[in-house]
Amino acid sequence: MFESAELGHKIDRASYDAEVPRLREDLLNVQFDLAKQARFQVIILVGGLDGAGRGETVNLLNEWMDPRYIQTHGMGEPSDEEMERPMMWRFWRALPPKGRIGIFLGSWYTWPILNQLQGRTKVADLVQSLERARRLEKMLTDEGALIIKVWLHLSREKQKARLKMLEADPKTRWRVTERDWEHYKMYKKLRGIHETVIRHTSTAEAPWLIVEGEDARYRSLTVGKLVHDAIRKRLEEKGGRAVAVHAPPLLSSIDKLHILKSLDLSQKIEKKKFAAELEKYQGRLALLTRDPRFAGLTVVVLFEGNDAAGKGGAIRRVTGALDARYCHTVPIAAPTEEERAQPYLWRFWRHIPRRGRCTIFDRSWYGRVLVERVEKFCAESDWMRAYSEINDFEAQLVRHNTVVVKFWLAISEDEQLRRFEEREKIGFKRFKITEEDWRNRKKWSEYEVAVCDMVDRTSTEIAPWTLVEANDKNFARIKILKTLCQRIEAAMKKKISA
Amino acid sequence: MFESAELGHKIDRASYDAEVPRLREDLLNVQFDLAKQARFQVIILVGGLDGAGRGETVNLLNEWMDPRYIQTHGMGEPSDEEMERPMMWRFWRALPPKGRIGIFLGSWYTWPILNQLQGRTKVADLVQSLERARRLEKMLTDEGALIIKVWLHLSREKQKARLKMLEADPKTRWRVTERDWEHYKMYKKLRGIHETVIRHTSTAEAPWLIVEGEDARYRSLTVGKLVHDAIRKRLEEKGGRAVAVHAPPLLSSIDKLHILKSLDLSQKIEKKKFAAELEKYQGRLALLTRDPRFAGLTVVVLFEGNDAAGKGGAIRRVTGALDARYCHTVPIAAPTEEERAQPYLWRFWRHIPRRGRCTIFDRSWYGRVLVERVEKFCAESDWMRAYSEINDFEAQLVRHNTVVVKFWLAISEDEQLRRFEEREKIGFKRFKITEEDWRNRKKWSEYEVAVCDMVDRTSTEIAPWTLVEANDKNFARIKILKTLCQRIEAAMKKKISA
Repeated sequence: MFESAELGHKIDRASYDAEVPRLREDLLNVQFDLAKQARFQVIILVGGLDGAGRGETVNLLNEWMDPRYIQTHGMGEPSDEEMERPMMWRFWRALPPKGRIGIFLGSWYTWPILNQLQGRTKVADLVQSLERARRLEKMLTDEGALIIKVWLHLSREKQKARLKMLEADPKTRWRVTERDWEHYKMYKKLRGIHETVIRHTSTAEAPWLIVEGEDARYRSLTVGKLVHDAIRKRLEEKGGRAVAVHAPPLLSSIDKLHILKSLDLSQKIEKKKFAAELEKYQGRLALLTRDPRFAGLTVVVLFEGNDAAGKGGAIRRVTGALDARYCHTVPIAAPTEEERAQPYLWRFWRHIPRRGRCTIFDRSWYGRVLVERVEKFCAESDWMRAYSEINDFEAQLVRHNTVVVKFWLAISEDEQLRRFEEREKIGFKRFKITEEDWRNRKKWSEYEVAVCDMVDRTSTEIAPWTLVEANDKNFARIKILKTLCQRIEAAMKKKISA
Repeated sequence: MFESAELGHKIDRASYDAEVPRLREDLLNVQFDLAKQARFQVIILVGGLDGAGRGETVNLLNEWMDPRYIQTHGMGEPSDEEMERPMMWRFWRALPPKGRIGIFLGSWYTWPILNQLQGRTKVADLVQSLERARRLEKMLTDEGALIIKVWLHLSREKQKARLKMLEADPKTRWRVTERDWEHYKMYKKLRGIHETVIRHTSTAEAPWLIVEGEDARYRSLTVGKLVHDAIRKRLEEKGGRAVAVHAPPLLSSIDKLHILKSLDLSQKIEKKKFAAELEKYQGRLALLTRDPRFAGLTVVVLFEGNDAAGKGGAIRRVTGALDARYCHTVPIAAPTEEERAQPYLWRFWRHIPRRGRCTIFDRSWYGRVLVERVEKFCAESDWMRAYSEINDFEAQLVRHNTVVVKFWLAISEDEQLRRFEEREKIGFKRFKITEEDWRNRKKWSEYEVAVCDMVDRTSTEIAPWTLVEANDKNFARIKILKTLCQRIEAAMKKKISA
C-alpha cells in the first residue's frame, strides 16, 4: 500500500523553482472561482507519519493560497465545551462554509489511531471507528462537500533521518516531541494500523492520496497540484449532482393498515385527573433534573406532529418543570444564510447542548424526510439517504450519554379540521391559520406515508419514537411527561450499572 | 433607594388568579409581535438579593411565555473557552437576535459586586466596572436593543425569613446555598454595594426597576407586567430612531494640512534589501509566536487602507511567518443575515480568538466610520458614537492581554490610478476592477476626511494606529512585519514586569 511512497521521490531545485510560480497562480485562481461559485466547501485532511512534513505542507499551502478563504485547524486537545459534547461536535463547528477551504491537521482519524497504538482498543473497535468515519465522509460528500485526504508517508529509515534533521536545526527543533520518538520506536505497529485505516477508508468519493514525505520539494509540489486539480475538476463539473436512486421503492401498504391507524386516538384524561397527574409528573421531572446524576447526562427532546397537533402547548408543559437556565427550546424554521452554506445536519449540531442540559427541538432534522420529501424540496436520493444519516447522528449523541427522546403527536384528520376551524373563529393572531396549513392538509395521506416510513426507519433501540395520541391534549401532555421521566430514569440507572 | 421595596407589598390569591390569565395572554401576544417585527431584541437582566426570588421569577416568565422565542442564561462559572477571552465575550455570544428575548440571571454586574463584597476590589474599581457596564448598555440601546433591568429586593428580616422558608421545604432546599447565608451575614455591606450599583447604572435608556421580592404573587405579577409593558411600548413606537446629533461638527482642516499629507510616500526598499529584511522579520515573528510567553497573549491585527493599497499581499507576508493552526484571517464583507440581527460589533466579537492565537481582520469594525459614513449606510449619530464604542471594544481586548495592531495602508491618488489601470490591463479575474472601485475613487477626499477623523479619535495609547506608506509594496510589508514584531515583544516584556 505504501510501496510507491517509499521509492525516494525527488524534485530538483531548478524544476521546483520553475513550477511553483505557475502552481501558486493556479491555486489562487481556483480559490477565487471556488469562492465565487460557493457551490461546495473543500475539506482537506492531512494525515500521516510524524516528521513526514504535515505541518510544513499545511503552512506552505496557506502561504501559497489566499489566507482569507482558507482556515487550518490543529484539533489538539479538546476544550471543556468540546469534551462535554460528542466527539464530532468540534469538527462540525469548524466545518468551512460553501466556497471556503478548511484544512484539518488532526481529524476524526487521530484518536482512533492513537488509541489503537497505545493498546486501549481492539482491532474491532478501530474498524468500527473507521466505519463511522466512512459514513461521515459519505454524508459530507453526498451533501456536496469535496473531501481531499492526503497521507504523508515515510519509510522507517527516512523517518529517523527526518526527525534527526529537524532536531539538529534550532529553528525546527521545537517541532520534534518525545511522542514523535516514541511513535518512531513503534514504526512497524503504526504502519500496520495506518494500512488498516487506509484500507477501510479509501472510498470512491474520498480516497486517500498517499504522498512520500521525505523530499520537501516533491511533497509540496505534489500536494499543491493535487489540491488544485481536485478543486478545478469539481468546479468544472457542470450541473447538479442529481443522483438517481437505484433502489427498490419503500414498502407500501397494500392493505391500508399502518402504524398511525393502530393508534387509539379516543384516549382521554379528564380535567381533574389531568391536574393531579400534571403536578405529579412535572414534579418528578423537576426532581430528576436536579438529581446529581443528571449532571452527567444530556437530554435532547424533539417534537414532530401534524399541524395543530399541540406541539407548542406540550413543550410548555415540559419546560414549565425545568430550570430555564439549563433548558433551551429551539424552533426549527427555514434555515438562515449561514446554515444554508453548510451540510444539512449542521444547523442541528450547533444546538447540541453541554452535559447537564436539555434542548427541546420544535420540529427537527426529521423535516428532511417529512416536509422536504413530500413537498419535493430535496431529491429522492437526498431523503432516502437521510434515514441512515439521522440514525448515525443520533447514535453519536447516544454514545455520548445523551438521552434522545422523539415524539410524534398524532391527531385525526377530523380533529385537525375542528382545530383549524376553531382557530379561524377565534382569530388569535398567533394561531392564525394560513393558506399553507390548508395546502398541507390536502396532502394528508402523503404525509401519512412519510411518517410511517420515518418511524419504520428511525425508531431504533437507542432512540425510539414515541407516538402520542393527541386528539385529547391532556392525554398527550401526560404521556409526554411520563415518557420523558421514564427515559431519563432509565438512563440514570444504566449509568450506575455501567 | 430601596424604601418603596420594603413596604411589604402583597397581592391576595383572588386578585392574582384574576389577573394572571390576561397577563399570560398579553405576554404571548407581545412576544408574537416582537418576533414578527424582528426590529429589536429584548435583554432582561434580573439582579438582586439571594432569596428574593430571582430564579423563581425567571422560571415563571419562561412558563408564561413561549419558550421557543426566549432563552435564559445562568452565566455561572465561565468555560475555558470563555476564560481565554475578554469577560464580555460570553455575553456577546449569548445575545438574543432581533425579535427574541434573552434573560440573564448572572450579568455583567455579578462579578463586580462579588469582588467588592469579598474585598478584592476598591470602590474606585467598582465604579470603573459600573462605568463600563453603563457604556455597554448605552451602546446596546443605541443599536436598538431594549434592556429591561429588574432588581429584586428584600429587607434584612425578610431575607432571613425567605431563606429559612426555602430551607424548610424539601422541594426548595437545594436553592439555598452556604453562600446565600454568608451573604446574608453581610447584608449591610451588600446593600451599600447594591445602592452604588443602582445609583451608577440607572440610566435614562436602561433604568433599574426595583421590585420587592418577598410576596411571590406581587413579585411575579409586577415583573410580568413590567416586561409586557416595556416591550409593548417599544413595539408601538413607530418609525426609526433617527437621533439628531446635537454636537459641534468635527474639526475640519482649514489649511488643507492633515496627517495623511504628512506621510512620505516616496519611501522605498530595493528588491535585494527587501528579500533579506523579509527573511529577517518573518523569522523573528515566527520565533516570537513560538515563544512560550506567546501562549499568554492574544493577537488581533487589522488592515484598512485605500482600494488597491496592497492589503492582501501584506497579509500574506504576515501569515507566511505564522503557524496556520493558530492564525486565522477573517475577510470582512457584507454582514450575513444572522449578523444583521445583532448589534454592529457582534460580528467582530464572534471572531475574537483564544489565548496563544492570532486573528487578522482584512477590513474591520472601522468600516462603520469609513465606508458606512461616507456612503451614508448609517446615520450620522451612528458613526459619531462608533468612535467611543470602538475604543471601549478595543480597551476590553487590551485589558485581556490582547495586542491590538491596526494598520492603515496609504497610497497616493496617482498610485491608485496606476494600479487600477494596471489591473485592468492584466485582467486577472481576481483583481478585476469594478465600477464600484471607480466610484469610490471619486470620493477620495471624503474618504481622506473620514480616515483623519478615525485616526484622531481611535489611535489610543493602548491600541495605536500605524500609518503605512504603501506606494512601495516592499516598504509597506517590511514596516508592517517590523511593527508587529515590536508590538508583540513589548507586550511580552510588559507581561514579565507586571
